[in-house]
Amino acid sequence: MSNIHLVGFERARDAVAVEVEHKLDMLLPREGGVEARIFEAMRYAVFAGGKRFRPFLACESARLFGVRDESALRVAAAVECVHTYSLVHDDLPCMDDDDLRRGQPTVHKQFDEATAVLAGDALLTFAFEILVHDATHEDQRIRCELIRKLARASGGQGMVGGQMIDLLSEGQEIDMVAITRLQRLKTGALIAFACEAGAVLGRASSEARMALTAYAHDMGLAYQITDDLLDAEGSAGEVGKATGKDEAAGKATFVSVLGVERARAQARMLSDQAIQHLDLFDEKADLLRQAARFVVSRRS
Amino acid sequence: MSNIHLVGFERARDAVAVEVEHKLDMLLPREGGVEARIFEAMRYAVFAGGKRFRPFLACESARLFGVRDESALRVAAAVECVHTYSLVHDDLPCMDDDDLRRGQPTVHKQFDEATAVLAGDALLTFAFEILVHDATHEDQRIRCELIRKLARASGGQGMVGGQMIDLLSEGQEIDMVAITRLQRLKTGALIAFACEAGAVLGRASSEARMALTAYAHDMGLAYQITDDLLDAEGSAGEVGKATGKDEAAGKATFVSVLGVERARAQARMLSDQAIQHLDLFDEKADLLRQAARFVVSRRS
Repeated sequence: MSNIHLVGFERARDAVAVEVEHKLDMLLPREGGVEARIFEAMRYAVFAGGKRFRPFLACESARLFGVRDESALRVAAAVECVHTYSLVHDDLPCMDDDDLRRGQPTVHKQFDEATAVLAGDALLTFAFEILVHDATHEDQRIRCELIRKLARASGGQGMVGGQMIDLLSEGQEIDMVAITRLQRLKTGALIAFACEAGAVLGRASSEARMALTAYAHDMGLAYQITDDLLDAEGSAGEVGKATGKDEAAGKATFVSVLGVERARAQARMLSDQAIQHLDLFDEKADLLRQAARFVVSRRS
Repeated sequence: MSNIHLVGFERARDAVAVEVEHKLDMLLPREGGVEARIFEAMRYAVFAGGKRFRPFLACESARLFGVRDESALRVAAAVECVHTYSLVHDDLPCMDDDDLRRGQPTVHKQFDEATAVLAGDALLTFAFEILVHDATHEDQRIRCELIRKLARASGGQGMVGGQMIDLLSEGQEIDMVAITRLQRLKTGALIAFACEAGAVLGRASSEARMALTAYAHDMGLAYQITDDLLDAEGSAGEVGKATGKDEAAGKATFVSVLGVERARAQARMLSDQAIQHLDLFDEKADLLRQAARFVVSRRS
């Protein structure tokens, strides 16, 4: 694996991060009323850092089909709002009870629990407000399709369902099939939406859409397995949050199910498979290929 | 005020309740996977009773414009999902900390806090999934308009913003202007959406839309003032939840700001004003007129 490629990927990802953060700054309300605190908390959560990996996926998949930047960035911003809301609620004392995220106080620590609940609610709602706006795409059909897919990916039959399974799995014996399903819902569904959204915006063939969805699922799992490996092995300094936390919480992970060596092999296999799904695309998909290599080689 | 009218209104409202509950039962997922608990909690929250006043408003406003039942009921179901999610999150220990709602354990008591957070999240998401579906309206433009308006009414610039103000107002001196704005956002925005949605579905004139929105705002405020009066005066048995709670929590209400007599007069004035906004509609709007009378005369 060439490090030059990874530098290209990281540079591209960081460039998307700058653009999507600018877009989010333009879009997120900033008001001076009594309720200003809700907008402050939304902005605090959204601008607390993060690699903006989902926005990168949305923008890169859109680029394959020549989608204009404004459309891609709006979808990327909506996906990041949903991702951020899920982190804010996930960090709550009644959920994962995390005081820090990326080295900063979590929203309920910086503000308070009630504000964190409301800021998460408002970010989720705002994602749909972004998507439904004319500026996302001139064709209402496309906007409706994006909204339908985002709702499905995020709700009880997607991300929230995965979070439910995750909570119910604490301290339970769980096998490879079950943990794969958990992760496909909890993190995979939104990653798949990010990848497919570009194809929806670009009115791509169903073949192209399916290829991107398949890519997203394999790459997303490879990402999650690597997360589990980093949690099991990494030091707190490298990962930027407390590690070994999964084990302490009695959480089943790919590492607890497969062991370190098989987990690592599985992640590499999924990364290769993800790249193969992109065979029908030309070199325009190279950054997505690099992304799939990156997720299994990253150190944080 | 004729009681015969109110009997007509209550009968009509209860008939809508039966229909919208049937629709919600058809729509809400019911799955047997590990995550079944999330769907159980969503259903527990939605089917915990309630007068279904917002669904009634959506269906009656739709009837003014000859909208077919399926469309009206889907919008009514979506509104009820958003209303229910707001109650589930509002009842959480970090918010109003209520153990009972309508005499039943609240969702976090019946399940647990994490499940209540997730069930609320999933209900909010599901509202958009309902609206975006083809069956809501054949024209994507209409669906997009409904989604845009629901997102605006529910988010940080609507209901959630109102909840934020409500939390920040505890123990604060607050005047009539401030409490009116609080309630317009916290409860008024979703009630206004319910009323306007029928006009959107029926492609009504902007005059008709504005009349329904004005009706909704006055009627919604009259409803809230009456709620405050019932809380201040009622007994726990009549209202079905703990009363006098607002005062105990140091919450500013219309009663604490205006006093009982002026609050009662204000509610009646708003009810009359709401009815006047309906002057451009014929007798098809009679049930909406009765609803405006009912909200200030109800005993629970």
